Amino acid sequence: MTPAELKALVRTVPDFPKSGIQFRDITTLVGHGEGFRASVDWLVERVADSGAQAIAGMEARGFIFGAASASALGLPFIPIRKPGKLPIATIGVDYALEYGADRLEMDPTSVAAGQQVAIVDDLLATGGTACAAAELLRKAGASVPVAAFVIDLPDLGGAKRLEATGVQVRSLMEFEGD
Amino acid sequence: MTPAELKALVRTVPDFPKSGIQFRDITTLVGHGEGFRASVDWLVERVADSGAQAIAGMEARGFIFGAASASALGLPFIPIRKPGKLPIATIGVDYALEYGADRLEMDPTSVAAGQQVAIVDDLLATGGTACAAAELLRKAGASVPVAAFVIDLPDLGGAKRLEATGVQVRSLMEFEGD
Repeated sequence: MTPAELKALVRTVPDFPKSGIQFRDITTLVGHGEGFRASVDWLVERVADSGAQAIAGMEARGFIFGAASASALGLPFIPIRKPGKLPIATIGVDYALEYGADRLEMDPTSVAAGQQVAIVDDLLATGGTACAAAELLRKAGASVPVAAFVIDLPDLGGAKRLEATGVQVRSLMEFEGD
Repeated sequence: MTPAELKALVRTVPDFPKSGIQFRDITTLVGHGEGFRASVDWLVERVADSGAQAIAGMEARGFIFGAASASALGLPFIPIRKPGKLPIATIGVDYALEYGADRLEMDPTSVAAGQQVAIVDDLLATGGTACAAAELLRKAGASVPVAAFVIDLPDLGGAKRLEATGVQVRSLMEFEGD
């Protein structure tokens, strides 16, 4: 399937989670067997090109694409989770949201020193979450050569923010005007 | 890898999330590239044997194994989510937990009438969540021929509860005495 055909499988929901936001919903993309696999195939190629030795994905939608890509490549999958979800001693990073703050956590033993870890997620907006995930992975001793997204909202500047930290950004499709 | 080798990759964390519970942690299993892929291969075979036309997975850990299995088979993935996460009109099922209650939601348009949907999750304990997921899928018009788990805790009776609703239960490994 072409990127344009895959883009047509993404559902746009107006005014979610709040008025004025056009929510780009991947439920309909992953609900299309061929479309889901084609999206994962695209991500897998970008990760393989980067030489990454593991894939990290952020709870919860990032688990969908990240785990599918890792399993397809036979690579370790590193879940990056919301606070308090992992049962072991974690390391964490706090980061700012438009309103308020959030925190990501991971098991520091899931990364080897110097290991190259790719980030895979469904959507890149301002890049706040992805930058926090990259920071967390570096704190654990990894380097982050690439972050691959299904959707980029380029008007929100996430790719620039992430690339400024040395991470290559790849996205399967873009929605402009968001 | 053998089931015994895969079982050895599961980490046991005592007293999480509360005193007296032995938490079976799949972070270490999915963090082992070969082990993660072998686990998904096992799940994929069980789903394929059942003839299911789609796979449903429950947020958040169920997304890891469910999405990887669906993508490998080229089948639709149906995310079953916590309340308020999906941007569209959902259907839901409330269910009891040991303490309190919880709710699962899904997009009813992600299932076709009569579609056979397999449930994939990391762990089967009392079966409360899996039974609620099966009920939700039936409410959407699907039938649920099989539920495949990486881990079963047979002492908690989840498989019996789920099988009593007509769902075949398959598990890659068991931990007894839990």
